[in-house]
Amino acid sequence: MIYFDNSATTKMSSRAQKRMLEVAEQDFGNPSSLHSVGLSAEKRISEARAIVLSSLGILRPQRWELIFTASGTEANNIAILGTVRAKKRRGDEKILISDGEHSSVEECARRLEEEGFKVLRIPTKGGALDLDFVRANARGAILASIMCVNNETGALYEVKKAFDIIREQAPDCVCHTDCVQAYLKVKLTKKSLGADLISISAHKVNGPKGVGALYIAPELLKAKKITPIIFGGGQENNLRSGTENVYGISAFGEAVKEHTERLGEEILHMQKIREHIIMHLPKDIKAKIPVLFAPHILNITMPKIRSEIVLHDLSAKGIFVSSGSACASNSAHKASSALLAFGTSADEADTSIRISLSPDNTIAEADELIKALNDAISRLARK
Amino acid sequence: MIYFDNSATTKMSSRAQKRMLEVAEQDFGNPSSLHSVGLSAEKRISEARAIVLSSLGILRPQRWELIFTASGTEANNIAILGTVRAKKRRGDEKILISDGEHSSVEECARRLEEEGFKVLRIPTKGGALDLDFVRANARGAILASIMCVNNETGALYEVKKAFDIIREQAPDCVCHTDCVQAYLKVKLTKKSLGADLISISAHKVNGPKGVGALYIAPELLKAKKITPIIFGGGQENNLRSGTENVYGISAFGEAVKEHTERLGEEILHMQKIREHIIMHLPKDIKAKIPVLFAPHILNITMPKIRSEIVLHDLSAKGIFVSSGSACASNSAHKASSALLAFGTSADEADTSIRISLSPDNTIAEADELIKALNDAISRLARK
Repeated sequence: MIYFDNSATTKMSSRAQKRMLEVAEQDFGNPSSLHSVGLSAEKRISEARAIVLSSLGILRPQRWELIFTASGTEANNIAILGTVRAKKRRGDEKILISDGEHSSVEECARRLEEEGFKVLRIPTKGGALDLDFVRANARGAILASIMCVNNETGALYEVKKAFDIIREQAPDCVCHTDCVQAYLKVKLTKKSLGADLISISAHKVNGPKGVGALYIAPELLKAKKITPIIFGGGQENNLRSGTENVYGISAFGEAVKEHTERLGEEILHMQKIREHIIMHLPKDIKAKIPVLFAPHILNITMPKIRSEIVLHDLSAKGIFVSSGSACASNSAHKASSALLAFGTSADEADTSIRISLSPDNTIAEADELIKALNDAISRLARK
Repeated sequence: MIYFDNSATTKMSSRAQKRMLEVAEQDFGNPSSLHSVGLSAEKRISEARAIVLSSLGILRPQRWELIFTASGTEANNIAILGTVRAKKRRGDEKILISDGEHSSVEECARRLEEEGFKVLRIPTKGGALDLDFVRANARGAILASIMCVNNETGALYEVKKAFDIIREQAPDCVCHTDCVQAYLKVKLTKKSLGADLISISAHKVNGPKGVGALYIAPELLKAKKITPIIFGGGQENNLRSGTENVYGISAFGEAVKEHTERLGEEILHMQKIREHIIMHLPKDIKAKIPVLFAPHILNITMPKIRSEIVLHDLSAKGIFVSSGSACASNSAHKASSALLAFGTSADEADTSIRISLSPDNTIAEADELIKALNDAISRLARK
């Protein structure tokens, strides 16, 4: 199997799998239990929390600077709905997002729009955040949610620059960044992002499915600027009730540790493969190169072959890529809004393929992909 | 280790663990992906969905009669907030819950109370739902949420009788039951419960943490009486966005299968242990026996020894029980509202211990517990 769909999901690493089983076997208690079985489960969570915080450059965390969730989607929902709901409502408050956001941000924003909030979408043509638009529209914003790396184009957005501009004009604006695709693929820290809230997901970085996390700046907690969206036993600082997925969280910690140990190398390795693919693409295939980009995502346009046809053709050969985002399960047949925002025509969006790498991919696999793409063009392109 | 805290959480069974690893290794794809790696992941979810539905007596399910969540808490939140938010708001609508609900139901109800909804709490003195109260107050209810088995006392509430009374007076009332503690511990089906919505949780039945499910009656879906509380990619019939925890869900299915294969025996076995403990309790210890009860939970009152002291004493001997519900991590020092509702005095609640069984417990373990309780009384009781 040649798996080039790592932005949809990754395979859990052996170390993470091993850890998951170890915790399930040894520390299976409910972290809220007061006896030693509960305490040792709680300890596994604390360890993972410290590892994830450290990977964000936070070595001396305050209590509850990070909470675990069930997904990146849930982290984004808490970040957006949780901060908006915590604020006394006036009615027409302004929210800034980019026009390339993942559905979990875009759908939250749409819901708030229906409730009367004014949502402005920052253009990202060519993969670059329009900072002039930000400058012209930041005043009065209560929340900005801008992703770090676009999940379809791999465009790296300059979130810190945007947040700096926004804070100048709207000092109380809460700044959130969805780092699900950026985390452990580009070098980033809380500081380099300049964000109050950072969403990440375990299954995009060789951790388990069913685990995400939300970084929350201590000032936000102190000012009570965030409120839960799910209610119950008060776990995770009362911001995410429900018994914690202890083995999943611990396995996530292990996966994070594994990547951070060799992140520099991994990034270079993925960059090399990405460049190799671009260099050797059949001449009829166009690569979409964003102004700034992450090392692991490459979106290409096939010449007159619908992406689903290519996807199935490659799948039959044991090569797995994506057409559009797998995270939008109900909208597989809509033209991707992220691609349209990038500047791709509707026709081109319909023939676009996403190749997404993990550090485990190899140049040899890239060569197989190129061969298969050449073959697909020669057989399938409409003349 | 002698683990008598199975209502807090259970250890994952070997079969469930094996399944989890198998799926993580073989079918790690994103179920929303269109290629074969995605499809085989999707198939694992479908299989688990059919198993869980079948365990609820539904052999020919309609599409989306069950959705997977990250926890019982999340299932309860979707059931309550999702149905209330789906309805056009008048402002003072009536909601019925019992006064012994789990925090994930009680806290949702409180939130709605703050928004102006009228929440009535059905008394459960002695562990019995006050059906006269239900009869006197059902008219005009839009939602009833009544748990099936109380997590602290083991009381089995007559939810079907209550729902029948409610439906007579309020035919459009949505009826939800939190079956997290009842599921695979007492015999139940969708029909025997008479509910529109049923919440369950995997980690209470030797499945993994991080997985729950919500049964949703097809009529509710058809009438659009339920709406999501988390927004995004539209997974799980757009009612629970976020990449599915495929291995967790599949492992849940395996655990359910394992229990249903021998449910009758398991119930008898737990009943036998429960009765054995009651029969041999030191004479100063009082068992709280609800009118109707589940086979796996026994709540006892220690003579003048605070429950936390007993808990730690037993924990030091490798015996694990609970004082109050482990699901209420932030309220460990409040007197349990479920115990007060049962009719226990605040003093008694403070000296109460919950013993909760799994089918893996043995009579020999029960004898060890009794010995340890005798020892605790002789050393620790305030004279």
